[in-house]
Amino acid sequence: MKMTDAVAFKKLKRQAARMKHPDMHLKRMWERNPQARANMCVQTDQATFDYSYENLTPQVMATLIELAVEMGLAQHILARFGGEIINRTEGRAVGHHALRAPTDASFVVNGEEQMPLVHDVLDKLEHFSNNVINGNWRGCTGKKIDKIVSIGIGGSKYGPEVLSIALKDYATNGIESAFISNVDPANLDRVLNELNPETTLFVIESKSFTTAETVESNAKSARDWMLQKLNGKAPVAEIVSKHFVAVSTATELVTEFGIDHQNMFEFWNWVGGRVSLWSAIGGAVLGPVIGFDNFRDVLAGGHWADQQYQTAPFDQNISVLNALTRIWNRTLLGRQNLALVPYSYPLRDAVFLLTQLIMESLGKGVDINNKPINFVPSSSSMGDAGSDAQHSFFQYLHQIPEKGIIPLELLGFLNASGAEDRIIQGRNISHHDRLMANLLAQRRALAFGKENLAEPHKHFPGNRPSSLTMFNERTPFTIAAYIALQENTVDAEGAIQRVPAYDQEGVQEGKRGAKQLEAIFEVANRGKPVDLSDLDLSTRRYVEARLARQLPTA
Amino acid sequence: MKMTDAVAFKKLKRQAARMKHPDMHLKRMWERNPQARANMCVQTDQATFDYSYENLTPQVMATLIELAVEMGLAQHILARFGGEIINRTEGRAVGHHALRAPTDASFVVNGEEQMPLVHDVLDKLEHFSNNVINGNWRGCTGKKIDKIVSIGIGGSKYGPEVLSIALKDYATNGIESAFISNVDPANLDRVLNELNPETTLFVIESKSFTTAETVESNAKSARDWMLQKLNGKAPVAEIVSKHFVAVSTATELVTEFGIDHQNMFEFWNWVGGRVSLWSAIGGAVLGPVIGFDNFRDVLAGGHWADQQYQTAPFDQNISVLNALTRIWNRTLLGRQNLALVPYSYPLRDAVFLLTQLIMESLGKGVDINNKPINFVPSSSSMGDAGSDAQHSFFQYLHQIPEKGIIPLELLGFLNASGAEDRIIQGRNISHHDRLMANLLAQRRALAFGKENLAEPHKHFPGNRPSSLTMFNERTPFTIAAYIALQENTVDAEGAIQRVPAYDQEGVQEGKRGAKQLEAIFEVANRGKPVDLSDLDLSTRRYVEARLARQLPTA
Repeated sequence: MKMTDAVAFKKLKRQAARMKHPDMHLKRMWERNPQARANMCVQTDQATFDYSYENLTPQVMATLIELAVEMGLAQHILARFGGEIINRTEGRAVGHHALRAPTDASFVVNGEEQMPLVHDVLDKLEHFSNNVINGNWRGCTGKKIDKIVSIGIGGSKYGPEVLSIALKDYATNGIESAFISNVDPANLDRVLNELNPETTLFVIESKSFTTAETVESNAKSARDWMLQKLNGKAPVAEIVSKHFVAVSTATELVTEFGIDHQNMFEFWNWVGGRVSLWSAIGGAVLGPVIGFDNFRDVLAGGHWADQQYQTAPFDQNISVLNALTRIWNRTLLGRQNLALVPYSYPLRDAVFLLTQLIMESLGKGVDINNKPINFVPSSSSMGDAGSDAQHSFFQYLHQIPEKGIIPLELLGFLNASGAEDRIIQGRNISHHDRLMANLLAQRRALAFGKENLAEPHKHFPGNRPSSLTMFNERTPFTIAAYIALQENTVDAEGAIQRVPAYDQEGVQEGKRGAKQLEAIFEVANRGKPVDLSDLDLSTRRYVEARLARQLPTA
Repeated sequence: MKMTDAVAFKKLKRQAARMKHPDMHLKRMWERNPQARANMCVQTDQATFDYSYENLTPQVMATLIELAVEMGLAQHILARFGGEIINRTEGRAVGHHALRAPTDASFVVNGEEQMPLVHDVLDKLEHFSNNVINGNWRGCTGKKIDKIVSIGIGGSKYGPEVLSIALKDYATNGIESAFISNVDPANLDRVLNELNPETTLFVIESKSFTTAETVESNAKSARDWMLQKLNGKAPVAEIVSKHFVAVSTATELVTEFGIDHQNMFEFWNWVGGRVSLWSAIGGAVLGPVIGFDNFRDVLAGGHWADQQYQTAPFDQNISVLNALTRIWNRTLLGRQNLALVPYSYPLRDAVFLLTQLIMESLGKGVDINNKPINFVPSSSSMGDAGSDAQHSFFQYLHQIPEKGIIPLELLGFLNASGAEDRIIQGRNISHHDRLMANLLAQRRALAFGKENLAEPHKHFPGNRPSSLTMFNERTPFTIAAYIALQENTVDAEGAIQRVPAYDQEGVQEGKRGAKQLEAIFEVANRGKPVDLSDLDLSTRRYVEARLARQLPTA
């Protein structure tokens, strides 16, 4: 069944039409039913999720939950956690939650229990991390490692990079991280220029070990650089084996590269790239940098979110409620955008991670039965850290005409942590008090507005929706819990909308085209004539310019 | 006149309706008229701007230019560059272009020539930068400065930070930069923890010198930290005067802070925050870091873009054409989003700068006559660097249903610069060849698609629009030119739509609310009882939780 054919969906359409009435302004809804609105909040042992500032009523949420039920969300959750092949286009189970499950958990795919494999790799990662930290693992000239350089792109990069920034205050082992993802030579070169080859360990992250950017470009160039820098200081094989490890499933290619197969950390085809933070993709980088106990806390935070998703009734289920508010805002109220604003400076770059998660998972043109869909199943997401964002796009959020309204997902941490919370001079408040005051004041101003008919440019219409997820402190556990809640939100959105959230066929055509153009550059670079007649004139202009190293002028 | 009442606008509405015909697919338009489409490109001595992959025809662009003419864009440009009070709500001229104009230029506001003031401050900045670089300026213990820490938020931060990252390869003076903007104590604390107080110079950037985040929170806390760290090593007054300078207009408050008025760099009320990169806001940070000659190249690049905007006929005017494609995509085709993708890793963070520029300038609810507007005058922007973005939201760009299409603005640099462009092992292509192949292939795949009716999940519908701005190399000049082209694009969008692009009244209500909540925290922190009865129950929940340092659980 299509979502738009569901009985509940039709009811929602009627409810959406009623939301246009002036009585449904957030200010008036709060005035009428303060207690009912205050109850639009889930309180758990770790987090609160507050949707009382959304453009909906408890009745609407009840209907949204009917929609989730009607579309079989409960069955989907059972199927996913039960290891069924829910990624149908790729014929795979979806099991990243198993990576963060405790030892006694079970995850069976095709009749085989996967958890022993998971925990074997985790133990191996812990051993590796500890060796790097305590100096048992040394570079080929005998020096201790003080830099882990991740070479990976997409999911191999965003998760580990965002967490290593967010958790910098936990990086107390004297080991730093750096990231090379982009094929732009400036990315590789800038990182290499700051490295001491003798104390650097590269982690090459590629499931197939054939990713164009990762293995074919950056990893091989990094290996060349290392061999050149350490030339004569150790045998070639030892330089590679002491300074490179891999996260991959392609033993043969990894070995061929020169990496000891013992230093290849596996993951499985039931782990998608954009949710691979929880696998060795995250562990091989974060383990040495923040310490493996902290990485285990990351996994525990993710598991907490899975438990919440699996066991809480829908009306108390953070990921389900978040998914339903997104569907409501997007499909019923026609608001295609989403602003993600963590009031936490260390989490600024999470917008890149969450944008991949949301838009690559849900930005699809077909449903799980491979039929074209008749609505837009994914938000377009953007964001920045609060309070910075207040000095950027919040102007837009407050005053854009109704049709441009962007729903906001706010994240807050009640208390300062990992940083000295200084008192503001001459005041009895701290920096963190001010941060919280700003977070709470912005959502109020957006929701309630401020009438000014005499000076329309100072008029705040209000009725701009937001949700708020709040934790007590920023820790490995809570940041991970937040990311996993977001993953499960996307999972629920996919299931309710019947969109295949775990493939990414849409990235293939560009790859094929790039190969075609690379072949042209390759022929030209050999000094041979090239045939550009298959190319449109615009592309031809830039190919010719690239070959001539000069743009045409008028 | 409202834009939607313009004769040309009505014509555009008819043209937009015709774009829905299958014959207007980009693939078919290119097949029919290859040369006419190839001509949809501006070629200048510095850059090409290519709009041949946009969902429009040369006829549509001709009508869009009629719209620009009808709405008085030429008159606006004359008025702006002539120093008229075009920022009517604030009663100010708009003159950031004067900051990047040559010595012999003129900019008259209220009958007074401004250029001597501009060049006096520039000379003072050059003197300051050179002194910091050559060690004439020293810290209070006699050490050379090796770190410039900017304390500013919004426009005071994004521009200098984006440029200092983008131009890192030009930072060869042994002076690094760091940025403190957010009121989150983690931002301040992380930067302070990595500083050597003896070799650090803080630049406090605040026009009024009263910004809550900047002066009241971060600058005062930084001063306390500095006084504590250097306690006893020099007199207090000298610690402050040797380690703090200001970019401001508030001499009295700056002096009161302890900064020598000689070390206050001025700018003027005709420079808006989000375009202040070109003032001392940029110069005081970038001058010492990349050298003042390079900062002068930044100004020259910006000036190049102004010349292009002021003198090129509209059909050859990059900013005008860019503004018109945005208005077409947004208001006529209903595509409210905009993806900004620089194929240049060092420019990844430009998305934060450009998002402020676009959304804070154009995210308004009223026109310049203070009448409510009946369309959405600003795109919502997001982005990431290519090729990273290909592994993130490009899935969405390629396959989202028609209603979700996001127009793309691509930026490319034809040649590698500032980085070794390594050859990819076993291939006759370099990293930069591969980067260019990806850029060109993605726009082709998006525009032309690839039919696959047998496997709908592998079907690429195409007809997804993009524009491409291309420069020969990434340099201080070209990056600045790109940013200034974007500024002028926003200026033209504002003028054509009659939207006040230079105020930001929408940020005020949140500020007022934050003060109210800070007052509550202040009373509570003094141990006095607080009255929360004015607050809604949701806000009350978090205020109480903050006071108790603990979220409520169920």
